Amino acid sequence: MSLDAVLHHIDSDVPNAIDRLLELLRIPSISTDPAFKVDCERAADWLVSDLQALGISAEKRATPGHPMVVGHIDGKGPHLLFYGHYDVQPVDPLSLWDTPPFEPQLQDTPKGKVIRGRGASDDKGQLMTFVEACRAWIAVNGTLPCKITFFLEGEEESGSPSLVPFMRENADELKADIALICDTSMVSRGVPSIASQLRGMLKDEFTIIGPRIDLHSGYYGGPGLNPLREMARIIASFHDENTGRVAVEGFYDGVHEVPQEQLRQWQDCGFDEKEYLSSVGYTQPHGEKGYSTLEQQWARPTLEINGMWGGYTGAGSKTVIPSGAHCKLTCRLVGDMDPNTVRDKVRAHVEAHLSPDARVEWNDDFEGSPASVMNIKRPEFAAAQKALSDEWNREAVFTGMGGSIPIAGYFKTVLDMDAMLIGFANDDDAIHSPNEKYDLESFHKGIRSWARILDSLTADT
Amino acid sequence: MSLDAVLHHIDSDVPNAIDRLLELLRIPSISTDPAFKVDCERAADWLVSDLQALGISAEKRATPGHPMVVGHIDGKGPHLLFYGHYDVQPVDPLSLWDTPPFEPQLQDTPKGKVIRGRGASDDKGQLMTFVEACRAWIAVNGTLPCKITFFLEGEEESGSPSLVPFMRENADELKADIALICDTSMVSRGVPSIASQLRGMLKDEFTIIGPRIDLHSGYYGGPGLNPLREMARIIASFHDENTGRVAVEGFYDGVHEVPQEQLRQWQDCGFDEKEYLSSVGYTQPHGEKGYSTLEQQWARPTLEINGMWGGYTGAGSKTVIPSGAHCKLTCRLVGDMDPNTVRDKVRAHVEAHLSPDARVEWNDDFEGSPASVMNIKRPEFAAAQKALSDEWNREAVFTGMGGSIPIAGYFKTVLDMDAMLIGFANDDDAIHSPNEKYDLESFHKGIRSWARILDSLTADT
Repeated sequence: MSLDAVLHHIDSDVPNAIDRLLELLRIPSISTDPAFKVDCERAADWLVSDLQALGISAEKRATPGHPMVVGHIDGKGPHLLFYGHYDVQPVDPLSLWDTPPFEPQLQDTPKGKVIRGRGASDDKGQLMTFVEACRAWIAVNGTLPCKITFFLEGEEESGSPSLVPFMRENADELKADIALICDTSMVSRGVPSIASQLRGMLKDEFTIIGPRIDLHSGYYGGPGLNPLREMARIIASFHDENTGRVAVEGFYDGVHEVPQEQLRQWQDCGFDEKEYLSSVGYTQPHGEKGYSTLEQQWARPTLEINGMWGGYTGAGSKTVIPSGAHCKLTCRLVGDMDPNTVRDKVRAHVEAHLSPDARVEWNDDFEGSPASVMNIKRPEFAAAQKALSDEWNREAVFTGMGGSIPIAGYFKTVLDMDAMLIGFANDDDAIHSPNEKYDLESFHKGIRSWARILDSLTADT
Repeated sequence: MSLDAVLHHIDSDVPNAIDRLLELLRIPSISTDPAFKVDCERAADWLVSDLQALGISAEKRATPGHPMVVGHIDGKGPHLLFYGHYDVQPVDPLSLWDTPPFEPQLQDTPKGKVIRGRGASDDKGQLMTFVEACRAWIAVNGTLPCKITFFLEGEEESGSPSLVPFMRENADELKADIALICDTSMVSRGVPSIASQLRGMLKDEFTIIGPRIDLHSGYYGGPGLNPLREMARIIASFHDENTGRVAVEGFYDGVHEVPQEQLRQWQDCGFDEKEYLSSVGYTQPHGEKGYSTLEQQWARPTLEINGMWGGYTGAGSKTVIPSGAHCKLTCRLVGDMDPNTVRDKVRAHVEAHLSPDARVEWNDDFEGSPASVMNIKRPEFAAAQKALSDEWNREAVFTGMGGSIPIAGYFKTVLDMDAMLIGFANDDDAIHSPNEKYDLESFHKGIRSWARILDSLTADT
């Protein structure tokens, strides 16, 4: 049977696959730093050349920033698009790295072998799991089982400024049946995960203004309205202290409870709540009462304060009642919450809670994005779930994501494509941090997983 | 008669007096910011030189912080000590100044001419009213009518850390019959005022710490305790929203109600509550319900937030749950409130209101000072009241002060001296704020007032 042969080829080719990944990791393609522009080009060239070696018609495509790598290979059956990114995060503070970030190496650790180096996990190692699966498939079968478009970005770590314009300009070329994205992690070690719901986000910023000038807190302390106190009172009013719920009227419109079946999956998914919390200094979850940590993170909306400031903040003291106080906030959105509606409600809440003589000014610069909820009823999700479960000998789970991955939303909004987010990273991979690594198990079984997924997605063809 | 000659000399010398003040105002002697240390020295040098030009034996005296200026001139009769301060507040936010803060100028306004610039009112302009009165007296009479000690500080706006040690070390030199302090305002425009009760002050600063590192608000938004929200909740808990009272347990211990007789005086003192509030954008007093604006300002304690900050405060947004949030606060104290006891109560309140997983760190650098209540039965008070009434053609009133002038208390506690606080600032002087000014009328009639007071205090000699 051809899948067994492919998996066997993958196993025997792992040393070569590692060598190829190490080669790619040696290129310091830091996208945010202009000093590494030529290295981003080199990384793109390396990928073009590697894809071409597989018989894929790949090329580097210019953008105002770093280039895209786009490759096509024809085939029967469904048309898949694979997305990954070849750029990496900066490496500072360099002094905290135990080995040079761009001299990657295979290391033995108490948890097994790892590939150590910047980009090993995010996202070069993950990206190559798919490329290596294709390489093995071609080696065994002479061709791929379906039509595949490769779409590799070089600006993901610097805000993807060229992504949406490029997608719009090349919509016909990029449009496929479904997108596969390999830039996520497993919910816990050894538990294969398909991220099927991502929270959306709304940003806002406001200033509360009290007196028309800064006042002396001796002369006006007492009769004077203090916008810092006003701000504190309003921020405090955003939440119900007893339940941890957001107290903005209508905030939860469009929020749906997680189905019991999914809750059970999450309870059994091996997520170590205690470790997750204690690693940053918490002894308990602090969100809405009655919801687990995973629900609070994946399936419940938030109203979070990201910045708050006003008055004198320098050294020493200043006896001032300032004219204004400032707040930056973000709401994480789930289900059918509409960013614009939620923004209106939050603003109405603030306006309704203002004291006489206080007023509020809003920053209008921000856009919101709704939650992405994947259509897991599509047969591809069940096929991928079975493939992953077979490989990891553990039922693959549909997980949520607390953060936003804009690319998933862009495939939907720009190209009207659904996406499957499947990745093999672990929480201790130290992505964006010193000593980034990718477990050899993630790499090896990740390659095997994609081979199985390709097989399962094309089983009928 | 010599007083008339002195007053006449003052009138004719006003242009020169203004020039001298502008020179002093050009020196950016911001005491709280180490970057301006050399400017504080320059301001002290300028004063030493100016006093020496009057025949006063003046010198700069080193302290661990900014220097004191101490000057003596001998004479018969009573020994007066004059206190003022040559340091000024920081100027931020600079963007709100219409003219550069340290390029002072004489400006025409609808209410008459003003001297505009940082320190014009607080306290360089006020300080110079006394120096100019002495200058005129000497110009006319060749000498001053009594023995005078000049005691000018450079750390008043940064908590006067060197003041008490310096007073203790030089107690014999500084001890006089009574202290004259020119750092206060008139209760209303044109109503000469002697401040006879001053609120004390307590400063404190704390940081609330949640997670041990800054967190991503996608991954930890929900289960994560946010110290910004924690801070807002705790600040909001400091006050009872319905009564406006401070909700810290035992906060009002030692607070006394104002006697009916004094309340009646205050009602008749010409204080324009509506103007006082509306001039800064208020339509109503916002302090404790059941107390007049003057009572809230003069006779009731406060807990005020002077600075509050944490998280991302730059342009754009950052999806962060920060590790810490910060707050600077001051309490204004009245009656027999003890600063140390009140600080303990405020700290206990914060500790009691912390959520699990949050902790607080306190800045221990601040000292407090109790309220000061003057002995207005001393004959100097009646003499000064008559002199002021003559100059302003309006009975001078004994007022309270919302601000703290710890120096008044220190003269009592360290040197066992009573103090008379007489100042000519107006409420719209914008001290501590952008566009600070001092009315030319305050400056001119202030100089004349001191000449009259010198005369009245030495009438028997």
